[in-house]
Amino acid sequence: MTNSFDVAAYDAVDVIIAKRNKQELTDAQIAWVIDAYTRGAVAEEQMSSLAMAILLNGMSRREISSWTAAMIASGERMDYSSLSRPTADKHSTGGVGDKITLPLAPLVAACGVAVPQLSGRGLGHTGGTLDKLESIPGWRASLSKDEMMGQLEDVGAVICAAGDRLAPADKKLYALRDVTGTVEAIPLIASSIMSKKIAEGTRALVLDVKVGSGAFLKDVDSARELARTMVELGKDAGVNTVALLTNMQTPLGLTAGNALEVRESVEVLAGGGPPDVVELTLVLAREMLAAAGRGDVDPTEALRDGRAMDVWRRMVAAQGGDPAAPLPVATESHQILAPGSGVLTQLDALKIGIAAWRLGAGRARKEDKIQPGAGIEMHAKPGAVLRAGDPLMTLHTDTPERFERAIEALDGAYFIAPEGSRPDLLPLVIERIG
Amino acid sequence: MTNSFDVAAYDAVDVIIAKRNKQELTDAQIAWVIDAYTRGAVAEEQMSSLAMAILLNGMSRREISSWTAAMIASGERMDYSSLSRPTADKHSTGGVGDKITLPLAPLVAACGVAVPQLSGRGLGHTGGTLDKLESIPGWRASLSKDEMMGQLEDVGAVICAAGDRLAPADKKLYALRDVTGTVEAIPLIASSIMSKKIAEGTRALVLDVKVGSGAFLKDVDSARELARTMVELGKDAGVNTVALLTNMQTPLGLTAGNALEVRESVEVLAGGGPPDVVELTLVLAREMLAAAGRGDVDPTEALRDGRAMDVWRRMVAAQGGDPAAPLPVATESHQILAPGSGVLTQLDALKIGIAAWRLGAGRARKEDKIQPGAGIEMHAKPGAVLRAGDPLMTLHTDTPERFERAIEALDGAYFIAPEGSRPDLLPLVIERIG
Repeated sequence: MTNSFDVAAYDAVDVIIAKRNKQELTDAQIAWVIDAYTRGAVAEEQMSSLAMAILLNGMSRREISSWTAAMIASGERMDYSSLSRPTADKHSTGGVGDKITLPLAPLVAACGVAVPQLSGRGLGHTGGTLDKLESIPGWRASLSKDEMMGQLEDVGAVICAAGDRLAPADKKLYALRDVTGTVEAIPLIASSIMSKKIAEGTRALVLDVKVGSGAFLKDVDSARELARTMVELGKDAGVNTVALLTNMQTPLGLTAGNALEVRESVEVLAGGGPPDVVELTLVLAREMLAAAGRGDVDPTEALRDGRAMDVWRRMVAAQGGDPAAPLPVATESHQILAPGSGVLTQLDALKIGIAAWRLGAGRARKEDKIQPGAGIEMHAKPGAVLRAGDPLMTLHTDTPERFERAIEALDGAYFIAPEGSRPDLLPLVIERIG
Repeated sequence: MTNSFDVAAYDAVDVIIAKRNKQELTDAQIAWVIDAYTRGAVAEEQMSSLAMAILLNGMSRREISSWTAAMIASGERMDYSSLSRPTADKHSTGGVGDKITLPLAPLVAACGVAVPQLSGRGLGHTGGTLDKLESIPGWRASLSKDEMMGQLEDVGAVICAAGDRLAPADKKLYALRDVTGTVEAIPLIASSIMSKKIAEGTRALVLDVKVGSGAFLKDVDSARELARTMVELGKDAGVNTVALLTNMQTPLGLTAGNALEVRESVEVLAGGGPPDVVELTLVLAREMLAAAGRGDVDPTEALRDGRAMDVWRRMVAAQGGDPAAPLPVATESHQILAPGSGVLTQLDALKIGIAAWRLGAGRARKEDKIQPGAGIEMHAKPGAVLRAGDPLMTLHTDTPERFERAIEALDGAYFIAPEGSRPDLLPLVIERIG
């Protein structure tokens, strides 16, 4: 695409002015500007003013599709067509306690659909799937393309780091948006996620778009717009795509923190675990199986009979991890008790996420180290009836001087209402867009 | 202003997001962002996304005033209070054939008001006052502050280059806007012009805001908005400011090109010259005199009796120029004849300006050299009755290979309508805003 026109025919300022003046950019202008930006021929200060014009003036469906295609064309594209089974991929826009990928990938693989899950690390209050898995002794995130394909064929599931060769334009643009106030543009968010997912080569994709305080998008309307845009982009690119809007007002499950979340995921694979994690894992597994053409398979059985756990153990071991090794535990803990009796009506995802981050579970900058054992265990979720003095949550860290700022972050994080009250929460799965 | 708050209290991304979300920036945010940008602590890609947000979301009068103050505070400010007479300054937003500063500065000085005119060079199709004067053998544009003050006291008029020390933030920001599609923002244009003019220290300022094809602003509404904004900024800063919207649909006078325009200016100072140049010079002189508190003086007399010409000669000589030396003449010329008989109803300023630029009168990049003798002489202006074969204009250049592209630029530049037709032009002075 990037070579099908005369690159000298465009000027960055003309492209910026066109979008600034609310004109639709042509496919050729978009292909040129992304290619030239990747090459360094369009300067950072030009791309940031274009990004701001896109944020404020929007993009048509065709423009977003073209922008996504240009970002895909900036790098390699993977191809799983040589595998003996279909593939399905899942992407979550990120939340607190969102460990769903860990039980989900082996569960879907156990049902006959291969899951090539290229994941990232966490930044800020949302955790990263790779950080969670790295709390397993020996486990490594980086695989070669051959290792990945071999593991997909043998085990059926891979969770590993995305290489630098997929959508490099997105990587460069994301770093720029982060420092220029241009992150919150639906066309740019959608094309960023979808360019990576489409370049990853899957033919079936389930998007878990989080809504609520702990999510990137706080309201259902914006989440729905993002979900619709991404589903359209997926379909335009020939990927069977469906999106679920799911609740991120309160954390998923009872843990937020890397080793804590691995432990909870293993509980789910063992047939236990918190009901919301089990439910969302099964809902997403059904969607992935259906999108990959295996809508006839019920994943409930594979979770119950240990087949999913078996794939999990093989998946961890294939990447050097010891699934039987004890998980890291933080050296210090601090319990928070219910200050009164009544019904827990609120347990705020953002505040819990920030507290876990401050305890050492997350990082503020890419180069920061995390504490695998740090985080928060919750002993009650919204709807629970509590008595004054009941344990509400336990904070874990290796560095006890962090407790103070974590407890500060929890100010207003929970609310205990008079008995008989009910939490006013959105359902776990709010809406399906497909 | 830039030191009256804690610089660590702001983050560039927060300031960008505030303007992106249509919030008003505080005075402290504006002072910080301009200061930090000048120091390099706010990156070019951050300032360009902020500039785009300002372009698309606008700024309140208070914000523009604060932005202008911050740009002034980025550098030095001149002070003429030690002079024995009042000062007045003029600024034109730029047009084709706009040589008015040349007769105007000595005329106003001859009437008892000192004129410290800090000018620039031309870029694109609009000429620069310094380029015009540099066609006078020996004349130099750069003066020290002491030379400038001495000449203002002795001669009463100075036209020289603005130093780098006035509003350096504006210089840096203007270069950035030029490459990021953010030039056409009224708040940024107004604060750019006014920060320089206020830093130049005048207490009385007349703004000549050009409207029409040859001007930066093509329509009366935008020009009026810019003029009002600048007049308010001047008044906020204690500068007695008035603006005239004037016609730039057709070139001013009968010449476009450096030495050609000096010759025409000298004709005006000698009591002749084209009626539009004489009229605009007198109108602007009256405004400058009135703004400086000398509204009782009629400049007509000083133009007629040679006093203005006397100041011109002394002004040119004081800067090393020989007012009696012959002006450069281009080596080659080419005449364009009226293709038919009738009334000249249109002579387009932009097309004439581009043709003169292509002949060598202007530059495309700062480092380009210009040809002092190059340009266009017009033999008829709109309203003139022509016979087929009458001379319409003469093109001048030292490099005859340029004729072809200049003639191309003149395609559609003039229109000869049936006899009895009248040109549909705005008046020379369209509106006064004070």
